[in-house]
Amino acid sequence: MSQVNIQLLAKELGLSIGTVSKALRDSHEISIETKKLVSDLAQKLHYTPNPYASSLRRKKSNTVAVVIPEVADSFFSLAIKGIEEIAQQKDYHVLIYLTYESYEKEKKILEDFRNGRVDGVLMSAASGTNTIEHIEELQKSEVPIVFFDRSVALLKATKIITDDFDSSYNATKHLIEAGCKKVAYLSASDSALMNINNDRMAGFKKALEEAGMPFIDAQILQCPNAPDVTQTFIEAVLRTPQRPDAFLASVEQLAAPVYLSCKKLGIKIPETLKVICFSTTPYAAILEPGLTTVSQPAKEIGKVAATHLFKILGKKRATHLPETIVIPSTLQIRRSSV
Amino acid sequence: MSQVNIQLLAKELGLSIGTVSKALRDSHEISIETKKLVSDLAQKLHYTPNPYASSLRRKKSNTVAVVIPEVADSFFSLAIKGIEEIAQQKDYHVLIYLTYESYEKEKKILEDFRNGRVDGVLMSAASGTNTIEHIEELQKSEVPIVFFDRSVALLKATKIITDDFDSSYNATKHLIEAGCKKVAYLSASDSALMNINNDRMAGFKKALEEAGMPFIDAQILQCPNAPDVTQTFIEAVLRTPQRPDAFLASVEQLAAPVYLSCKKLGIKIPETLKVICFSTTPYAAILEPGLTTVSQPAKEIGKVAATHLFKILGKKRATHLPETIVIPSTLQIRRSSV
Repeated sequence: MSQVNIQLLAKELGLSIGTVSKALRDSHEISIETKKLVSDLAQKLHYTPNPYASSLRRKKSNTVAVVIPEVADSFFSLAIKGIEEIAQQKDYHVLIYLTYESYEKEKKILEDFRNGRVDGVLMSAASGTNTIEHIEELQKSEVPIVFFDRSVALLKATKIITDDFDSSYNATKHLIEAGCKKVAYLSASDSALMNINNDRMAGFKKALEEAGMPFIDAQILQCPNAPDVTQTFIEAVLRTPQRPDAFLASVEQLAAPVYLSCKKLGIKIPETLKVICFSTTPYAAILEPGLTTVSQPAKEIGKVAATHLFKILGKKRATHLPETIVIPSTLQIRRSSV
Repeated sequence: MSQVNIQLLAKELGLSIGTVSKALRDSHEISIETKKLVSDLAQKLHYTPNPYASSLRRKKSNTVAVVIPEVADSFFSLAIKGIEEIAQQKDYHVLIYLTYESYEKEKKILEDFRNGRVDGVLMSAASGTNTIEHIEELQKSEVPIVFFDRSVALLKATKIITDDFDSSYNATKHLIEAGCKKVAYLSASDSALMNINNDRMAGFKKALEEAGMPFIDAQILQCPNAPDVTQTFIEAVLRTPQRPDAFLASVEQLAAPVYLSCKKLGIKIPETLKVICFSTTPYAAILEPGLTTVSQPAKEIGKVAATHLFKILGKKRATHLPETIVIPSTLQIRRSSV
């Protein structure tokens, strides 16, 4: 079937393209009879307006983009649910773009947004992102962007985050009180600009310091950004004679590799190694042993971020208020840490 | 900052819009000097072509859509990874749309595709989809669509699926051989058209039949399409005096609620209830007890589906060959079923 467009409608009806276009837009210049003719044929042939053409006119795509590192993490699938709930109320489409933690991919995606493909952007930065220029470029093009969970230091933007410092501090304190002497922080990002990395690490250090335990660099374990080798890396760490007696794992993707490594090496959780993970996985309670988690309010963070984006979109001129909203996480203690 | 477009470049340079446009397209009609002038200013002002305008010209968006029920299921996050690998080679953007198992949402998304927003569609049907008209409408508009995992009966389209009948038959046989007398099939869809539902159920029935066990309707347990009440539903089933002695759970999302229900009611897996689940979760091996899974080749299915879509997109006229490709799953036996 050839594409049904205004040209075809005009040809079929023997009218000018301008007349058909005006009729479809319900212009007062066109008679009711003509409007009915056009509308009847449009319906009969299942005419739908070309979204690109109409976007050019009204500069609106009625879509928002969600740019996230991945979807395998339950945090992001829950956050998307929250975003979708708000977008649905506003009758917006939600498009999801994945960066796979790559700065290059993130940059390319943001470039694609600069000229109106989406009306606004909700973003959680890639762990590989160590610069802010690509985000500032998007902000200049007046496409509003709101950050959730993972934002970037130095950048002026609205950020909806959790209490990364406090929740990391509390988790570390809990491990120290459980008797751990060599707690290690498992990180999945080496970005010096990423809030969750910096704040969670700072909370970890603060708890050590308060307990009179001198922090040494070797307590920060930087996992390679490659899911296939994460387990190999963790196994190597656990094979060293000075191995840690506790892990504070900073992202959900580290939980399964830690458990699988221990299983393989015969290391008992929590007897030989205590584990806490930032995670919202529904499996936490049914793992062997149950996994203590820092449980982030993922869906709520998504909802609040989307609400803020639509607030900006509702204004005549998009403005970027450098506002930061903190929604606290909770420590869910299970057997892996006691 | 006002938007940098061809009009602005033309004005700044004192050239006609046509000249600038041709210069940007490297037309032979334009001198090298002029091209350099235009290109230098375009770079200086960070000009990027308007994707809507250029799409109108070349009728190409260089994006493919992935329409899936959800992302919390590890099957879909792995399939997306496979799709993304192929799309990246072709320099295409991948947009992900979620239906949340709703036919209405799926229909709305497909309508949005009819006039060129994306070049092609990779889709796994919503469990609520019980009709094919909305898909046929998209096919008529010449936007090619390739199905993966969940397709719809009666529909003529390329479908990349796994061996649903055989893998369900094998899983059920395994449970019967382990001594189960009252195996129940946990379904999350009541669509009479969905392949995974029909084929998995048929394989289940076939295994019962071969074992001389008469099938009764009560052995198909239809879970409500609402994650919040799934566990309540399963608990209710497990509280009945005639409760099943085994579950074959048809989708990953049912695994956690089954385990949590058993934990709450003090029902021992595998002693009192054996469990097998269609799932690719990385947690399967570290659950208590380890979960026997029908492991689908998720990433491979995504890759093959994307490869087929790009093959169609590479042709002058999009054609819909009703081809079905089957990539087999494997039964990973762990403690929950033995």
